[in-house]
Amino acid sequence: MTVQDAHTPAQNTGGGTTTAGWHKAYVEGSRPDLRVPVRQVHLTNGSAVTLYDTSGPYTDPAAETDVRRGLPPLRAAWIAERGDTEEYRGRPVRPEDDGLKPHAAGLRNLDALFPGGSRNPRRSRTGAPVTQLAYARRGEITPEMEYIALRENVAPEVVRAELAAGRAVLPANINHPEIEPMIIGKRFLVKVNANIGNSAVTSSIEEEVEKMTWATRWGADTVMDLSTGRNIHTTREWVLRNSPVPIGTVPLYQALEKVDGRAEELTWEIYKDTVLEQAEQGVDYMTVHAGVRLAHVPLTANRKTGIVSRGGSIMAAWCLAHHQESFLYTHFEELCEILAAYDVTYSLGDGLRPGSIADANDEAQFAELHTLGELNRIARRHEVQTMIEGPGHVPMHKIKENIDLQQEICEEAPFYTLGPLTTDVAPAYDHITSGIGAAMIGWWGTAMLCYVTPKEHLGLPNRDDVKTGVITYKIAAHAADLAKGHPGAQEWDDALSDARFEFRWEDQFNLALDPDTAREFHDETLPAEPAKTAHFCSMCGPKFCSMKISHDIRREHGSSASEIQAGMEQKAREFAETGNRVYLPLAD
Amino acid sequence: MTVQDAHTPAQNTGGGTTTAGWHKAYVEGSRPDLRVPVRQVHLTNGSAVTLYDTSGPYTDPAAETDVRRGLPPLRAAWIAERGDTEEYRGRPVRPEDDGLKPHAAGLRNLDALFPGGSRNPRRSRTGAPVTQLAYARRGEITPEMEYIALRENVAPEVVRAELAAGRAVLPANINHPEIEPMIIGKRFLVKVNANIGNSAVTSSIEEEVEKMTWATRWGADTVMDLSTGRNIHTTREWVLRNSPVPIGTVPLYQALEKVDGRAEELTWEIYKDTVLEQAEQGVDYMTVHAGVRLAHVPLTANRKTGIVSRGGSIMAAWCLAHHQESFLYTHFEELCEILAAYDVTYSLGDGLRPGSIADANDEAQFAELHTLGELNRIARRHEVQTMIEGPGHVPMHKIKENIDLQQEICEEAPFYTLGPLTTDVAPAYDHITSGIGAAMIGWWGTAMLCYVTPKEHLGLPNRDDVKTGVITYKIAAHAADLAKGHPGAQEWDDALSDARFEFRWEDQFNLALDPDTAREFHDETLPAEPAKTAHFCSMCGPKFCSMKISHDIRREHGSSASEIQAGMEQKAREFAETGNRVYLPLAD
Repeated sequence: MTVQDAHTPAQNTGGGTTTAGWHKAYVEGSRPDLRVPVRQVHLTNGSAVTLYDTSGPYTDPAAETDVRRGLPPLRAAWIAERGDTEEYRGRPVRPEDDGLKPHAAGLRNLDALFPGGSRNPRRSRTGAPVTQLAYARRGEITPEMEYIALRENVAPEVVRAELAAGRAVLPANINHPEIEPMIIGKRFLVKVNANIGNSAVTSSIEEEVEKMTWATRWGADTVMDLSTGRNIHTTREWVLRNSPVPIGTVPLYQALEKVDGRAEELTWEIYKDTVLEQAEQGVDYMTVHAGVRLAHVPLTANRKTGIVSRGGSIMAAWCLAHHQESFLYTHFEELCEILAAYDVTYSLGDGLRPGSIADANDEAQFAELHTLGELNRIARRHEVQTMIEGPGHVPMHKIKENIDLQQEICEEAPFYTLGPLTTDVAPAYDHITSGIGAAMIGWWGTAMLCYVTPKEHLGLPNRDDVKTGVITYKIAAHAADLAKGHPGAQEWDDALSDARFEFRWEDQFNLALDPDTAREFHDETLPAEPAKTAHFCSMCGPKFCSMKISHDIRREHGSSASEIQAGMEQKAREFAETGNRVYLPLAD
Repeated sequence: MTVQDAHTPAQNTGGGTTTAGWHKAYVEGSRPDLRVPVRQVHLTNGSAVTLYDTSGPYTDPAAETDVRRGLPPLRAAWIAERGDTEEYRGRPVRPEDDGLKPHAAGLRNLDALFPGGSRNPRRSRTGAPVTQLAYARRGEITPEMEYIALRENVAPEVVRAELAAGRAVLPANINHPEIEPMIIGKRFLVKVNANIGNSAVTSSIEEEVEKMTWATRWGADTVMDLSTGRNIHTTREWVLRNSPVPIGTVPLYQALEKVDGRAEELTWEIYKDTVLEQAEQGVDYMTVHAGVRLAHVPLTANRKTGIVSRGGSIMAAWCLAHHQESFLYTHFEELCEILAAYDVTYSLGDGLRPGSIADANDEAQFAELHTLGELNRIARRHEVQTMIEGPGHVPMHKIKENIDLQQEICEEAPFYTLGPLTTDVAPAYDHITSGIGAAMIGWWGTAMLCYVTPKEHLGLPNRDDVKTGVITYKIAAHAADLAKGHPGAQEWDDALSDARFEFRWEDQFNLALDPDTAREFHDETLPAEPAKTAHFCSMCGPKFCSMKISHDIRREHGSSASEIQAGMEQKAREFAETGNRVYLPLAD
């Protein structure tokens, strides 16, 4: 395996970096168009540490990126080569796709339209599944799977086998060729999703694209565009064309906009049309709240906080208004056929997740989970990749039951949880209340963690909140990787701890999850350049620096670990032999 | 039990509040001078929630506080009444107590001296232990114990029994009569300690006093003054005289200043004199690194990050320089006698705690733990209250072993841990890396959590960092209380979730751990006053507010939970009977 720095002449760049302290580099695969990005941190002691990188071409000084043109279609050749898909004239974009009245085309904000041009969408040529699950089951190792093998440092066969078993998903809509493939499964690194999206109240297209690139810059592995309100279609187009990571959505939100927010007016036809619209655009995974069945709704009546999932509450309202079973449930097989034709991955939503500590692990929640298990089996039969969403608000002692039941009922399909939040009492700090639960459930087998920002329950996250949410969840995910004993996970910690012990401050900053803030905090009290090589910091000062003292000990008592050990053991023996100053054996 | 608002006429105040959203109130005990402070949050629906309060008289509008005078000696009568202590002329304050050269009295900054006057110190009249442990063993329920029973909402006998068994400590130096008694033990609410303290590099006396009141304002249950550098004695005097919570120190830091930072020049005599100095001032608990024995030092030679405890590294350096057993270990029984005469609680330091993921749960760490177990038995024999400090940096899967071993080896003495940090890769976010570990180890039985601020590893925390650290750790502690099933813990979550579900925004803010930030975040996007009663927020907007939809459902389908339930169950039955739209039983 060759790792090449993006700034070496071979990569045709003029050098330099786009981010402090690390270089973009690539691991080359079996074909020239298979180059897996990594983050290389070059240390002052001459070594380098290679880290997983989600930031896309934006951090490659050799890449020319332009959000008005979109990213290059990295996977286009791979998709075309398989020969199982065809281009076709897609569904025309309608004014109501952007939340306008039908026939209001003139009102559409044409300045906002994505200027990068449109491609004809692709779909399965025969209607047969064109999913990575179908390929994996047939024993094929696709370029996407090889890409992931390099990215996760495992054998390609491991990737294929985990996908074939339904224990992992590789969300990669054939109409989203721009993505750098990634995998979600308990055998792999724990992933993090960041939600973005405007709402009827606030936020613009530009802000959402910026939030997406910002979130991936800090490590988001996927991004969900949860836009509501106006410009949903157009916002999504901008996000998709510029995203190096898979994009998820909740099609129900857009469908509801098309019926002016009146849940009872939703129909399967409107929903299906929305799913087609989004599948053609390239949405990689879709949250579908098909597990909220009419019979489940009464189970929520005595809850403290009712139904807190937007999708869940919309479907519950629809079921009650019509006194009918959910159309998502009754049309689930048809939906599978659509998703299979584009390789859209299911994220089966937990519409009845608990919204408070009081409601955790209740009958409503687990009744829905059983339905999700049933739907997972149907999706697998249709060879549609499937992951299962999980809660929510759960006190620590009730977390493990969630992952254990989910793994059993859903036959090890990847679990994708929102936190969980371990207490309700800290609005404005729910990244932390939930980061605790996320780390624990990640350790126990959850494959992807949906971030929670400090604004949860209070408002829409801004750029700073997105960063805080992503960093908090990268911590949870990495802590989980360590606890799972994921091969190689500890190398990062070891490199940083070595730098810390050796007072290589610049290396410490550059290896940090957030180098900018680490450097800024250090500089607040010791700003001068010499402090960057000082053998202490402002926390303890030179006299009290334990690491400095440790070094003094090693210097005075030997220059290598074995010398120190031998020297100290000798001293200890002498001491034990003379013994006159030993505290006598302590009475019990 | 009567709860009286501080602003009622009975309390002789003019009304008003010092903090947004809640009132200081008191629960009265069996005697008029036994009044336990609580935080009463008055809700807009007419009810009130009572929360534990650590903020001292500063948040009582009826109290006149003046940091130059200090707090009233709340416990003075209780201590005197016991008749087992006497006043005496204490050790005179010397220039070197503040880090000056001997005979440099003229250089002392007299402006900085605490102006509130000095009391003669008290000590045991006969030398017999005057500790809460001794009283508890004799079957006495002291006013301090009754105070705690009211504070923790348990029977006084529970408090006494836990203290007598050594499963809890009540740190309350007889020379710190200002404190509001609190307890540290697994049977009680999980507590949080905040570290403050200047260093040789930065920070002033005023700042440290301000950090102490600020930390307790946000919920710190104890504060450790870890000052080094100049003015250690004077800083501590200001902190003690103004602190409503127990104060902990590491006397070794001051002792080291007295020998100009040269560890090898430390002696038992200098250390003992420093302990006396601090015991007379009123320090409630002292970290003593007596577990770092000469024979343990070689065990750290192959560690990634050596010894990371300041006290541990100082003692290791001393042991090696003299090739002798630690004077803290050899004089431990003598130290017990001193501490027993003032009721200073031991916090047996874990000088060999791991400073990196790589070093977690290693031989050095657990060798020291066994020594701490031995010292704990000795301290108990001397009736000195004792808690045990714990790590450090520990990946999640190795955390439980720490508390389980500690509880076994130290016979259920309260465990007091620093985090633990669950990964090394996030400097600037170590409040979060450690908050995860703290919540878990709290759940599993740790009695007090030492906070970690965002500045850990980088610099000294400022006021914002102190707040962030305390809030993060209050979250961890409360999440642990919930997971332990602590009686009453969930009432707080339930009250906040009720407020959330009923769109009582003001109540949500006021019940929040940090009302100011919750309100500020909400107002960023929806600042207008009507938004405070709006049945949605900017996160989802009105159409997508799941809670609004849940309410619509309840309104349309019944006005009480049982009606909804009955109505929906009826509909569900009708639906099941007609059945023609049910999705047919799923295969598999």
